[in-house]
Amino acid sequence: MPDPATLARLSEAVDANFDRQVAFLAELVRFPSRRGSEAPLQDWLARAFRERGYAVDRFTLADVPLEAHPKASPMVDADPARAVQVVAAHRAQAQAGRSLILQGHIDVVPEGPPAMWTYPPYAAVIRDGWMYGRGAHDMKAGVACMVFAMDAIRTAGFAPAADVYLQTVTEEESTGNGALATLLRGYRADAALIPEPTGHAITRAHTGTLWFRLKVRGVPVHVAVAQDGSNAILSAMHLVHALFAHTRMLNEAAKAHPWYAEVPQPIKFNPGIIRGGDWASSTPAWCEVDCRIGLLPGTEVADAMAGVQRAVQEAAARDAFLANNPPHLLWHGFQADGYVLEPGSEAEAVLAAAHAQVHGGAMPERLSTAVNDTRFYGLYFGIPALCYGPKGEGAHGVDERTSIADLRRCTLTIAAFIADWCGLRPRAA
Amino acid sequence: MPDPATLARLSEAVDANFDRQVAFLAELVRFPSRRGSEAPLQDWLARAFRERGYAVDRFTLADVPLEAHPKASPMVDADPARAVQVVAAHRAQAQAGRSLILQGHIDVVPEGPPAMWTYPPYAAVIRDGWMYGRGAHDMKAGVACMVFAMDAIRTAGFAPAADVYLQTVTEEESTGNGALATLLRGYRADAALIPEPTGHAITRAHTGTLWFRLKVRGVPVHVAVAQDGSNAILSAMHLVHALFAHTRMLNEAAKAHPWYAEVPQPIKFNPGIIRGGDWASSTPAWCEVDCRIGLLPGTEVADAMAGVQRAVQEAAARDAFLANNPPHLLWHGFQADGYVLEPGSEAEAVLAAAHAQVHGGAMPERLSTAVNDTRFYGLYFGIPALCYGPKGEGAHGVDERTSIADLRRCTLTIAAFIADWCGLRPRAA
Repeated sequence: MPDPATLARLSEAVDANFDRQVAFLAELVRFPSRRGSEAPLQDWLARAFRERGYAVDRFTLADVPLEAHPKASPMVDADPARAVQVVAAHRAQAQAGRSLILQGHIDVVPEGPPAMWTYPPYAAVIRDGWMYGRGAHDMKAGVACMVFAMDAIRTAGFAPAADVYLQTVTEEESTGNGALATLLRGYRADAALIPEPTGHAITRAHTGTLWFRLKVRGVPVHVAVAQDGSNAILSAMHLVHALFAHTRMLNEAAKAHPWYAEVPQPIKFNPGIIRGGDWASSTPAWCEVDCRIGLLPGTEVADAMAGVQRAVQEAAARDAFLANNPPHLLWHGFQADGYVLEPGSEAEAVLAAAHAQVHGGAMPERLSTAVNDTRFYGLYFGIPALCYGPKGEGAHGVDERTSIADLRRCTLTIAAFIADWCGLRPRAA
Repeated sequence: MPDPATLARLSEAVDANFDRQVAFLAELVRFPSRRGSEAPLQDWLARAFRERGYAVDRFTLADVPLEAHPKASPMVDADPARAVQVVAAHRAQAQAGRSLILQGHIDVVPEGPPAMWTYPPYAAVIRDGWMYGRGAHDMKAGVACMVFAMDAIRTAGFAPAADVYLQTVTEEESTGNGALATLLRGYRADAALIPEPTGHAITRAHTGTLWFRLKVRGVPVHVAVAQDGSNAILSAMHLVHALFAHTRMLNEAAKAHPWYAEVPQPIKFNPGIIRGGDWASSTPAWCEVDCRIGLLPGTEVADAMAGVQRAVQEAAARDAFLANNPPHLLWHGFQADGYVLEPGSEAEAVLAAAHAQVHGGAMPERLSTAVNDTRFYGLYFGIPALCYGPKGEGAHGVDERTSIADLRRCTLTIAAFIADWCGLRPRAA
């Protein structure tokens, strides 16, 4: 860990830049960077990185051989050519320390009904030490931390003594293809840090995720003779209930899992979007439900998919109509493995030391019941991947917010981590 | 009923015009006259009526004081100013017989997924004696019958000896406001005939209909902590199931109804459209279900609405989340009474005689479990209203079709009915 004098210089630098950091984060939040609409923010970030002197590589998912990689996930309702990724490189002239990837996603999930928000979801309103907005917490705060951790090193008169890549990616909320694309583009390092909003805990493990769309047909008739038809909305709900039962079974089995045994119901199933029918007085002819289900580290994606398929097939077989009109399963997003950051890595030890220096005490650990991008680095490219970041609330909900005070502490922690992992050299005047 | 010679002349005239009638029906079917898109077809019909020499009154629902009438239904998602109605008047110089309203609706319900259709839904394909298409059966065939029944009288050298109004209306499938608007515009007659596709049966009674939209909120959270949120899709389905239970209770009570006691489950409840949520990995924050439920003749609309409201409230009270986050009920269409055509009317006797002349045998009767426009004439304006028309299949379904052979017979039956009810005079050369 950095010596106390260096840490003090870094801390002063974080403070000196902090007003600009909060303004930077507010700018990020003001971009409604939902899936398919991330490019303007990525362009803005590319300019911000260039102004800082980084070498910037801006490319899209159509520029890398995604489909050839077994861990790419299918993209439905989204155009790879519009999914812009940004990598800003600090290239150290002499590699004294260990190289590092700092990565954050800038895609956000839809904000839901704006009327449910206390403040407009893209206004970045600050009240009582919190900044409110969709993505403020998940994970634009973390992006601001990693950018301003590097800024603090520069302001303090240093530069990392090894290569550092600042990466802003998309698709974290739907496929993970953005993170994978940076690796397929060729970027590697000795460790990766993703400052997802973990509340200053290290993510020991995360579950995997599957996305799928249930598509059922009905027999449309005039409701006057509803008994002759088949209501696709009710058929869809029959399958949804079967998938909840499947999930309960998986959660029973999870009680023997080496990491998740103590987590209550770690497998979450969610019917998240439903659409069906087109007339109140016609039996609906169709219904679609976009679903998400988790899987534990160690479960093969293919096996989890087969389990879903089987649960749907068995439920269909129990239904007189669906037995002869089988539902269709479209795998339309995440096919994501779970991941365990095995304890004992040097990268984690360095981060724990930085955490202790800034926060005092041991770095807590968490078991996440959602996915994040670390799996790509850790599982497929042998790069220790740390998921650790600031504190906030309301991911995917209303009144999402991030703590301004924690933003500052997290920025300093990351700066301290970089200082130790990469080493510092005096910055050329 | 007309004497055999007159009937023979009418029959010859129907035959002589029949190719044009089928072509006319095909033209009607080719207009995708879904709600909000009926105006081009109404314009086309207004021209067709003018070419036949009728005095044409074309107006919209915004031109009549709909809102002041207690039996108007709320219009949501539809603009009254775009809902064009057409009344074509044959004004008899000397009123010898009884006046008549011939009314048909030209709005059609959505066609659903086109891929489910054997032939394209607006192509009016004819195969093996059937014409296929959305609205071919419900009820453009009936509209063609009433128009060509009047044409046959003219072709046979006659004119009705009393006023006849040919009316094409909209909103039959959603509110009934089109029919009501013709009455508010001032059109009255001694009887009304609506040639809905009844398969040559007289509609003894029809049920009423309510439309409502269930709107529920959820607590959106990241699915990783789904237990902290509340899924609006599941909440909506909880209410839907409660409304099915409410319907079963109503159908038990229906076993004592003077007309519907023998009809199995005459009250139909249908969740017809569902929309909810916006992200597979977020607990959905909202869900809306557009529903339809029937009511028996004799039940007050207000009481049926109160029953729905109570069922929803009681179901909400049983749910921990909904109890504190009450669902919203939007009454967004039909508030329609049921109607019984009391046996014994002179109009029905005249129609039965015409039916017997053309078809042989007694006119069958039917009890409908759906609404039609006759209620406005019969219940609120004291005009005996007959619902009787051609034969087809697939109302509101796929592969909707109407029988070409029955089209001819129905046209002749209506011509014979007009001849008797209105009387005929020789047509001026």
